[in-house]
Amino acid sequence: MAPKYAPSLRSRLAPLLLFLQAGFITIYAFFVEVDSSVKVNEKTFSNFYPEFQDVNVMVILGFGFLCTFLVRYGFSGSGFNLLVAVMATQWAITLNGIESWYYTGKIRINLRSLVVAEMCTASVLISIGAVLGKTNPVQLIIIALLEVSGFVLNEWVLQTLLKVRPLNGIMLLHIFGSFFGLVLSWILYRKGSELRFEKEKFDRKTGLFSMLGTVFLWMFWPTFNSILVDDRTPGRKLGAVCSTYLALAVSAVTAAAVSLLSHPKGKLNLIQMQSCMLAGGVAVGVSMSAVHQPWEAMTIGFTAAIISTIGFQYLKIHMLLAFQCHDTCATLSTHGLPGLLGWLSHLLLQIKDSDDHATAIWFAVFHICTLLITITISLSVGIVTGLLLKWSFWRPPQNNKCFDDQAFWEFPNLAVRK
Amino acid sequence: MAPKYAPSLRSRLAPLLLFLQAGFITIYAFFVEVDSSVKVNEKTFSNFYPEFQDVNVMVILGFGFLCTFLVRYGFSGSGFNLLVAVMATQWAITLNGIESWYYTGKIRINLRSLVVAEMCTASVLISIGAVLGKTNPVQLIIIALLEVSGFVLNEWVLQTLLKVRPLNGIMLLHIFGSFFGLVLSWILYRKGSELRFEKEKFDRKTGLFSMLGTVFLWMFWPTFNSILVDDRTPGRKLGAVCSTYLALAVSAVTAAAVSLLSHPKGKLNLIQMQSCMLAGGVAVGVSMSAVHQPWEAMTIGFTAAIISTIGFQYLKIHMLLAFQCHDTCATLSTHGLPGLLGWLSHLLLQIKDSDDHATAIWFAVFHICTLLITITISLSVGIVTGLLLKWSFWRPPQNNKCFDDQAFWEFPNLAVRK
Amino acid sequence: MAPKYAPSLRSRLAPLLLFLQAGFITIYAFFVEVDSSVKVNEKTFSNFYPEFQDVNVMVILGFGFLCTFLVRYGFSGSGFNLLVAVMATQWAITLNGIESWYYTGKIRINLRSLVVAEMCTASVLISIGAVLGKTNPVQLIIIALLEVSGFVLNEWVLQTLLKVRPLNGIMLLHIFGSFFGLVLSWILYRKGSELRFEKEKFDRKTGLFSMLGTVFLWMFWPTFNSILVDDRTPGRKLGAVCSTYLALAVSAVTAAAVSLLSHPKGKLNLIQMQSCMLAGGVAVGVSMSAVHQPWEAMTIGFTAAIISTIGFQYLKIHMLLAFQCHDTCATLSTHGLPGLLGWLSHLLLQIKDSDDHATAIWFAVFHICTLLITITISLSVGIVTGLLLKWSFWRPPQNNKCFDDQAFWEFPNLAVRK
Repeated sequence: MAPKYAPSLRSRLAPLLLFLQAGFITIYAFFVEVDSSVKVNEKTFSNFYPEFQDVNVMVILGFGFLCTFLVRYGFSGSGFNLLVAVMATQWAITLNGIESWYYTGKIRINLRSLVVAEMCTASVLISIGAVLGKTNPVQLIIIALLEVSGFVLNEWVLQTLLKVRPLNGIMLLHIFGSFFGLVLSWILYRKGSELRFEKEKFDRKTGLFSMLGTVFLWMFWPTFNSILVDDRTPGRKLGAVCSTYLALAVSAVTAAAVSLLSHPKGKLNLIQMQSCMLAGGVAVGVSMSAVHQPWEAMTIGFTAAIISTIGFQYLKIHMLLAFQCHDTCATLSTHGLPGLLGWLSHLLLQIKDSDDHATAIWFAVFHICTLLITITISLSVGIVTGLLLKWSFWRPPQNNKCFDDQAFWEFPNLAVRK
Repeated sequence: MAPKYAPSLRSRLAPLLLFLQAGFITIYAFFVEVDSSVKVNEKTFSNFYPEFQDVNVMVILGFGFLCTFLVRYGFSGSGFNLLVAVMATQWAITLNGIESWYYTGKIRINLRSLVVAEMCTASVLISIGAVLGKTNPVQLIIIALLEVSGFVLNEWVLQTLLKVRPLNGIMLLHIFGSFFGLVLSWILYRKGSELRFEKEKFDRKTGLFSMLGTVFLWMFWPTFNSILVDDRTPGRKLGAVCSTYLALAVSAVTAAAVSLLSHPKGKLNLIQMQSCMLAGGVAVGVSMSAVHQPWEAMTIGFTAAIISTIGFQYLKIHMLLAFQCHDTCATLSTHGLPGLLGWLSHLLLQIKDSDDHATAIWFAVFHICTLLITITISLSVGIVTGLLLKWSFWRPPQNNKCFDDQAFWEFPNLAVRK
Repeated sequence: MAPKYAPSLRSRLAPLLLFLQAGFITIYAFFVEVDSSVKVNEKTFSNFYPEFQDVNVMVILGFGFLCTFLVRYGFSGSGFNLLVAVMATQWAITLNGIESWYYTGKIRINLRSLVVAEMCTASVLISIGAVLGKTNPVQLIIIALLEVSGFVLNEWVLQTLLKVRPLNGIMLLHIFGSFFGLVLSWILYRKGSELRFEKEKFDRKTGLFSMLGTVFLWMFWPTFNSILVDDRTPGRKLGAVCSTYLALAVSAVTAAAVSLLSHPKGKLNLIQMQSCMLAGGVAVGVSMSAVHQPWEAMTIGFTAAIISTIGFQYLKIHMLLAFQCHDTCATLSTHGLPGLLGWLSHLLLQIKDSDDHATAIWFAVFHICTLLITITISLSVGIVTGLLLKWSFWRPPQNNKCFDDQAFWEFPNLAVRK
């Protein structure tokens, strides 16, 4: 292996993509059809479509451009995100439909099933943030397939064993994705990462590109949290939107304040602020079904932003040095910790609202089990995935080709930046 | 004060943000709840939500990226815009709800109240355009709070004294914001501004970022003008959308043509075109309730673009040299002059439509009073705000740190642009 | 004519724009009014508005930023696109309303007529991609007016002679626009184009800007294909959305795989991938009314991406060397070939679904006539337009000013890129 060039992916990635894509087309040919049964009481197509597009924009544009902050990794950040998103979504549609296939022989797709599939995809995109820049697209595709499988398995276990409502199960995607990503990044640890990677930095323009992605996530997060809320009680959905909106507003302010306080010279850090201003949306999403008042959401947003900002500032480097876990996009502090906070808030709010002691304890036991199962499945599948990816057959980029588009992308004119 | 470094904001901005945010959470805890009373005849949630998101995109992304054209001020342009927007919106929700609080003890929030609050915020973001790059975020937050208060006061005065309809009052936001910004910028004038600021310029990439923001404002402006139009008469709302759409189209063409004519070498100026192609939307917004035919909207758009482009070309430098008023984003020609034109068009169209002479004169008197009150309140609150901001306690950036992100933002690698 | 400076456009573009705009305002004053007749059974305003905005975003932002990939041509790419779009839309509204004007004396505009007009505009924007960078805005405006006229004529011929349904006729816009652009680019061929233009390249940042435009096109393409589908049968519309969504997903994966395979070093090419991942949307759009199963759409998307990627890799250079046709944005492989594939798929699927032999043959004859008429009109109007544009009165940019913003845009500080 020549040390100067990154290994070519032609013989790995192209066959993998074509094989998987042909496989999906075959599966869809036999088992998938468009759901043409439209019940009258159900939400009509036109009402749901704009919200579906908001989620689509978040998954494709939001997560994609969030990952463009690395100065030499913008093409990969946005391009591989798209590639992973479409593979994961196709796979998630298939897996989510297995139950329907079992009973009726067909998987029926509609806007709701597309949205649920995109939410599974979101958990993959969160994980990928942890290994961004240190993996090649072959590895990312494998992560996508295995993580979606794990996530759907987790859903099924929670719904079957613990009777967790689907919406609450799906919202654990932040916790699932974050722990999955962390354990992956721990297993794929490269010697030499303690020193900063040479190309792991941002500049004035890439900071703005990732600001663009962040802002789309931030703006449409109320849709993300409310889209699956049952709208037969419209006040419930409005509550979800307002709660998320206010929590995000509080998060943004708090992230800026804490970022200033924790910086030695009292300056703001754009990437830190981008990560942490989303924390409120994560935390409120996880605790959504127990949040009833705006101030509860705002308090959760406030706490989430503090935890997230401090985590970004101190925990990220600690994770690297103490646990040898290099977390590129700080998924632990962006999604993991706020997700856990949301889980805890859900528990506390539910206990507060309980009428009697017994129900409260009962709920607490169930709620703790939910978290433990989720983390267990996430870590187990993550470890399996990580071990599989360590295989050098996948041709991961060398250390000096990490965070560099030139390993994967053609630049026709080498003198592009004159 | 060391002249080399911009003063640190840690001891000013962080406590201010945390104090205000804690205050808002307390207020919301006692007085704010989600509006769960959904009347059957009212617009349902699903119909209104996409339009709410359009306005949200305009306020957060549109105005934010419009301000990224300065070559070294993109982080601040988009980041501080977000910070100001969320503070102003939280404050506007509170102030707008005072009447409801007075009668029922509670402020009820729903999508409509969020939209109204974001429109108050828009007037703040317009003002901030005038002082962009010459103020620090502490000052921007103070501007936000005081201007929202002034704007809500103006609304209240207009509605109570003159029985102006809420929609017409809100649409004066362009005039209010523009004059507020101008007087601020006049009071905060810095010696030495007659010479061009060294960093006040754009480049190929920042021009495209601000194009992005402009285009989002331009595309969603029909929503901005029509969202509060009563939809019990659907034709009225469609009329507002079509009028704004056509006026914006005409504006864009006219702005390009006049920009070419007024340039000595017959070239286009991107920043000028960006500002002036929005003029039609402003003017039609202010005169909306009197515009009934597409061609009226198009003529208003045509005139607005001419005035705005000429204002940008000649008035901006004149304001600086003659009145010592440095208007970074040319808010006078983007929002002020087209707003006044819209006001005048409203008057003329209403007089034309009047049946008899007496009604016409009556309306004219009321309409002139509306404008005078708005400008008076805008200028008064602007002067108070400006005098407060001159206090050096707020640590404004030095002249040589104006228009520079490095005063506020951390750049981990100084050699970022290699 | 000094060879060093690009010719000034003041005496050409400004009068043209003002004259046309004044003309449109006059036409609209006499003949256009807002459609206030809202039938109860029709789709209401609120349901249709978000989809209208999606199409608007595609036309203004999507196509505009798609054209920003050229390293020194971003202002022109996005700015001229906007200018052309608004002129073409105003003209298309007028021409599409001629029939209504003939019968009722008035052209009535509503959201649907705006959408149809924007689709005519889309065909212009496709053509312009072929001559991007080698024409000046005066020429682009002339192209816009003539091509819209040709496209509306084609619609009328197809509907009158062959009774083609309006939706199917409009979807031929990809074929029409692509062939129109090709013949234009063939007639406007410049000596010396066999050598690569010096400035025809992209860099890290412009690649991301065009990624942004592409991603918006990609995300909202399901709206583009489904918006005009009759929604009295909601399943039909849902089918259109799901089919387009899946076809685009398959396209993206396949484009990446084929791009890898066809590159000598096994790398991805971002611009190629951007063009080719849209191919599925094009092909499914053209064949929409015959696609009933998800797998059919996916197979079409798969084939379209393969054809498109191979076309981009080998055909583009072949067209240049053998036919002297320099196609900047590869419209042939992005819109032309996938459009033809969609046409063919439509034919095959319809034949497969036919009950008897006679109907199938009958349909095939009609379908082939539709294509032949479209291509004939497209090429004829294209040739006329091209010959008109060759006239040096329009002051096209010199060869060394091609692909350069400085021919048209003011850069106040020449040292902008320090």
